[in-house]
Amino acid sequence: MFEEACRYLTQHRSVHIEELTHWLTIPSVSSDPQCADEMVRCAEYTARLLTEAGMEQVEILPTRGHPLVTGQWLHAPGAPTVLIYGHYDVQPADPLELWETGPFEPHIKDDTIVARGATDDKGQVFMHIKAIQAMLKTSGSLPVNVKFLIEGEEEIASENLPTFLKEHGKRFEADIMVVSDTAMWDRDTPSITFGLRGLAYMEVECTGPDRDLHSGGFGGAVANPAEILARIIASIKNENGHIRIPGYYDQVREITDRERELLARIPYDEEKYKAGVGVKALWGEHDRTVLERVWSRPTVEVNGIWGGYTGPGAKTVLPAKAFAKISMRLVPDQDPVAITDMVADYFASQAPSSVTIKVNKLAGGKPFHTSVENPFMEVAADALKETFGREPLFIRNGGSIPIVAELRDLLGLDTLLIGFALPGSRAHSPNENFHLPTAWKGTEAIIRMYAKFAAIP
Amino acid sequence: MFEEACRYLTQHRSVHIEELTHWLTIPSVSSDPQCADEMVRCAEYTARLLTEAGMEQVEILPTRGHPLVTGQWLHAPGAPTVLIYGHYDVQPADPLELWETGPFEPHIKDDTIVARGATDDKGQVFMHIKAIQAMLKTSGSLPVNVKFLIEGEEEIASENLPTFLKEHGKRFEADIMVVSDTAMWDRDTPSITFGLRGLAYMEVECTGPDRDLHSGGFGGAVANPAEILARIIASIKNENGHIRIPGYYDQVREITDRERELLARIPYDEEKYKAGVGVKALWGEHDRTVLERVWSRPTVEVNGIWGGYTGPGAKTVLPAKAFAKISMRLVPDQDPVAITDMVADYFASQAPSSVTIKVNKLAGGKPFHTSVENPFMEVAADALKETFGREPLFIRNGGSIPIVAELRDLLGLDTLLIGFALPGSRAHSPNENFHLPTAWKGTEAIIRMYAKFAAIP
Repeated sequence: MFEEACRYLTQHRSVHIEELTHWLTIPSVSSDPQCADEMVRCAEYTARLLTEAGMEQVEILPTRGHPLVTGQWLHAPGAPTVLIYGHYDVQPADPLELWETGPFEPHIKDDTIVARGATDDKGQVFMHIKAIQAMLKTSGSLPVNVKFLIEGEEEIASENLPTFLKEHGKRFEADIMVVSDTAMWDRDTPSITFGLRGLAYMEVECTGPDRDLHSGGFGGAVANPAEILARIIASIKNENGHIRIPGYYDQVREITDRERELLARIPYDEEKYKAGVGVKALWGEHDRTVLERVWSRPTVEVNGIWGGYTGPGAKTVLPAKAFAKISMRLVPDQDPVAITDMVADYFASQAPSSVTIKVNKLAGGKPFHTSVENPFMEVAADALKETFGREPLFIRNGGSIPIVAELRDLLGLDTLLIGFALPGSRAHSPNENFHLPTAWKGTEAIIRMYAKFAAIP
Repeated sequence: MFEEACRYLTQHRSVHIEELTHWLTIPSVSSDPQCADEMVRCAEYTARLLTEAGMEQVEILPTRGHPLVTGQWLHAPGAPTVLIYGHYDVQPADPLELWETGPFEPHIKDDTIVARGATDDKGQVFMHIKAIQAMLKTSGSLPVNVKFLIEGEEEIASENLPTFLKEHGKRFEADIMVVSDTAMWDRDTPSITFGLRGLAYMEVECTGPDRDLHSGGFGGAVANPAEILARIIASIKNENGHIRIPGYYDQVREITDRERELLARIPYDEEKYKAGVGVKALWGEHDRTVLERVWSRPTVEVNGIWGGYTGPGAKTVLPAKAFAKISMRLVPDQDPVAITDMVADYFASQAPSSVTIKVNKLAGGKPFHTSVENPFMEVAADALKETFGREPLFIRNGGSIPIVAELRDLLGLDTLLIGFALPGSRAHSPNENFHLPTAWKGTEAIIRMYAKFAAIP
């Protein structure tokens, strides 16, 4: 059935590109209240894609936030049941001026489709939908039972999914969850991810005087909230990037020797890494390798900062307020709620009485870590090897898919993270893109993988 | 002639309020390129006010930036010549959302006219124009020779005026310059200002990676420019607000015993001061009084800061760039150019090799300080005392009027700073306003003052 399915994909490629393109034109920015209607429109199109693929009981299920889309095919008695998780929401597109073309005007350039969501995650969800569609259209059945769970709040840390699953968890029970929302090591080297960092996010508001003041009249006597906020942010780390908030590392689990072995196999090239992001030097904990820092160490990051006059020219003002968006990437066994409280308390404790600090705690998610000895992971590795002609690497990822840890807690479900983004895919950045030849190759690997899953007792 | 002039003012008050109101509707924001046309419109209306007042050779003179307005009346042979300096440009109005009504929709509330520029400086220039108009209309002559110099770039540190005056200084020669762009101690206590802080202003750009990065993928390994900028800003002062940039205080002149005497006479009330700006505690050099800090000590102030994601909700981005607008208030004998270079070099020297710093040096101006033993100052004090029924205070001002020091250098001209803004006038802040009864009283004081100037040999 593999050949027929692949032939089907080749024959229908142009239609599939049209479908993906249409999906990418919908600005499904979950964090932007103004996109609420677009979120619904995007959920509806997602449901349509599942229906066309042959899924049954396709539904758009409301949550307390944005709806999620589900569908299933359960006619493979005795075979494992796979829960395919993905998300149709995307990151905000700004800074808009850095996009070569509109973030929601997809276009193909050098075999690569450029648009917000191309790789994170619409493009990768699309691969699973089309793999299954190809099998169903050519052989009328699937080697495994399949359930889809495509949510609309992954980029806001799946705020409402856990609550939803506490009520509706039953319908999503499965033997394994498969997620394609991570990356390959490079274009030639497929990868399986066995660890994800968690996330905690907050907005800090620092208030000084009750209005913007003339910096001449008051400068030197009244605390400047932008300066105080800068002082607190600066105090969080030492000059080596080590976080000084008391207790911040208490729950951090050190990586094992087995993991060090796997890390050692990775052909990491520092010069290439620096060139890839356009910096002359890296930064961070000097006593840790770069891969350890981004995969196994927690962070405190300034995602945004603003206050005072930011227009053209000079304005001599002592601002009334300054703000910062602060996020923490977490590693096992840090708890997002505990860390959020810890960092919020730190900001409050460091503020002089001349300002007041208000913290708005936003979404968070637990870190994820799983064993590399797992039958689903092993056959997935075989499928990748057969397709790409190279042993896949076992890696971790510095990013977060909060629901992965949640689902293990809620449904006792382990997860296989098999991703096809490339280092240049620019997830979360302007000109996000997805390399189509990799997408088509990955779709073949997914077909092979599901076939192999059938053999797992 | 005093009584007639005052009667004239009372009789024409409503017309004068209409004129001031119209002047305030013109958004003459010199720092905003989009306001270029409004600046011209504002200069034209300023010229019209001078002509109606009876000034001769009224002209709008082009500079390399915004035009300035001049006019003169020189028919008092043997009497001193007074150069009246002021500015028709205003600060930007933002944050707009904090204005109770439009910043350029003047309205009167409790005897107070509310609009950007009401007190800084259109309202105070208006007092001089009307004082002179009243004298000319009622007695056909003035007790002194008068020249007006009303510029359009004071809020951007008179960028082009010095160059202009190097060529056209001759026509502005006078015996004294009078400026009303400062404040009274309070509604009942007139004040003469004998010192102003200087100004240096720069925009700092800190660049990290060549694009916004996924904070999960790269956080911990790539320097965050918003964090680095915060670290450098935080390093500028110690916890007492003392500036640690090497050499920053080298040229600072300590205040004299005579000044300490004058300072001691000032009824400063710390609780009132704190309540006035809505803070629980003040900040700054602990070993200096508040008045010393704002009048006789230099600052480094963050006027604005921005970088990364500042929209609604959460975006997990490691920003490519962060920016800050930094200004320094200077005291005798600090030099704006030297200080600008010193601070710019400091930012560059503190940046790790993982980021690059670019400094855009904006306008600057020298500090001003003059002797309180000066015949013009003495008779001005008498005029204020006769009008307000109270001895004026001799004060300094933490703000800057860069041209004041420039003119002394260029024309050897000393300056009398006689201001009528009130502590609640909110110059540079939302809901800037001017207390009209104080304005009319001050206009009478100005008429008395010019009469007394005539007696100065």
